[in-house]
Amino acid sequence: MKLATFDAGAGPQLGAVVGDRIVPLGAGLPVEMTALIAAWPQVEAKVRTVVEAQADAVSLDQVRLLAPIRRPGKIMAIGLNYADHIAESNLGTPEHQVWFSKAPTAANGPYDPIQVPRVSQALDYEAELVAVIGQGGRHITREDAPAAIFGYCCGNDATERAWQHRTPQWVLGKSFDTHAPFGPWITTADEVPDPHALGIRCLVNGEERQSSNTRHLVFDVWDQVEHLSHAMTLEPGDLIFTGTPGGIGAAMKPMRFLKDGDRVRVEIDGLGALDNPCANEV
Amino acid sequence: MKLATFDAGAGPQLGAVVGDRIVPLGAGLPVEMTALIAAWPQVEAKVRTVVEAQADAVSLDQVRLLAPIRRPGKIMAIGLNYADHIAESNLGTPEHQVWFSKAPTAANGPYDPIQVPRVSQALDYEAELVAVIGQGGRHITREDAPAAIFGYCCGNDATERAWQHRTPQWVLGKSFDTHAPFGPWITTADEVPDPHALGIRCLVNGEERQSSNTRHLVFDVWDQVEHLSHAMTLEPGDLIFTGTPGGIGAAMKPMRFLKDGDRVRVEIDGLGALDNPCANEV
Repeated sequence: MKLATFDAGAGPQLGAVVGDRIVPLGAGLPVEMTALIAAWPQVEAKVRTVVEAQADAVSLDQVRLLAPIRRPGKIMAIGLNYADHIAESNLGTPEHQVWFSKAPTAANGPYDPIQVPRVSQALDYEAELVAVIGQGGRHITREDAPAAIFGYCCGNDATERAWQHRTPQWVLGKSFDTHAPFGPWITTADEVPDPHALGIRCLVNGEERQSSNTRHLVFDVWDQVEHLSHAMTLEPGDLIFTGTPGGIGAAMKPMRFLKDGDRVRVEIDGLGALDNPCANEV
Repeated sequence: MKLATFDAGAGPQLGAVVGDRIVPLGAGLPVEMTALIAAWPQVEAKVRTVVEAQADAVSLDQVRLLAPIRRPGKIMAIGLNYADHIAESNLGTPEHQVWFSKAPTAANGPYDPIQVPRVSQALDYEAELVAVIGQGGRHITREDAPAAIFGYCCGNDATERAWQHRTPQWVLGKSFDTHAPFGPWITTADEVPDPHALGIRCLVNGEERQSSNTRHLVFDVWDQVEHLSHAMTLEPGDLIFTGTPGGIGAAMKPMRFLKDGDRVRVEIDGLGALDNPCANEV
């Protein structure tokens, strides 16, 4: 199933994407994605019945897709997790997983503007597979990790490079408002037989900048869930940005940052695509 | 006013601490602290009326105080922000503010156990003044920062030192479950005439380990709010951990980490005290 948060003019609601249409989940079901994910074991059968009936389906053209989860509880993101990105960063393969966070207020919709910040303009893209936590928990083993994941989507770990690097801690440069677009919907894990065999690409104004496959992850998604959950309880709707492949703008010679009017597209096989314009923060 | 989240046996509710008693806010007011803070301009007068009437007040002895905000939207924390702590860390005074985050799932009550993690036992304390965001916003100037803060409380930026330092990014080592105790209540900003003139201490099993004053902050609270809000929207109930003074266990020779059975007390003039036992994670 492809679950989305959308606005057809009356505010955010949940729906399932079927072809080029969206089926509203309607009454008697949670109205917010985190609540839907938390209740999934109890409501999945009802959701499937509603979606199969396709009542009140509307064309995707007629609605606005929003961030699938308006305000995630946590956005955790791993750095240096594709060999070609490690090389372009002039670093060695890390012995341990390198984690940072993105502020929940950075969450952004799949087609909404990414702000070129007022205070600095070294805005860069990072195409990433995003795993959405389902029931979650603590001390989830690698073997149990697949069952802890609700679904997958595309993500752009947009980054303000000057703020990322002017102190040793990356968090601020990763946490600007609008710098975590994800979606366009969440594809439930049952429809993603192998999250480690997905082509992933980033295009800027139609020009391919990143092209790789999730099989090249240094630490795969299961390792990531195991490691993170040693420290913290993972909860329904938490997001894991799983790393970006080579090709970032900051590694080009000369560096090429995103500017007002650019369009950034992140696409992953089977999961759809983000297509965000960039716009100067006013 | 001193606003708390407490449990008298029927689940979490809001109240105001008056002397050694707590006055439940009762019907017709928000039942969760973030909602109360967001609605404060509209509900403050009613809250003050309820608190002055002191109906249904119960002794603090009879209730359990919980984390004032059960699940903060963001916990942002600044590093290296007192000269003596910078010196003991063998680092120079940073030119720019060094920010990291603590996971919202690390939030913990004022008297609840801090876990000595199963995966590593280099657990340390960091006494800190915590600022609680009120109406918040983006691009808040230093001049407008005082009005953006709802109140203040004590915080312990508990840290797993091995996980903090085994990669360059501190977030995981700062984000273990239970490692962000704060409270015991939120003292509203009108009762804190100068947040930069407060004695702050940390005691372990009664032994004073940290003793300083918030006048020694390198970047003061107003600078912090201005800087953070250049990047991100600050929202009602977001927490800012404003830095720790010298005296951490990792800087002692030999290093002294917290262990099962220890008690850590963080006290700040006028804001009350945290008093958390440490307990091995089971």
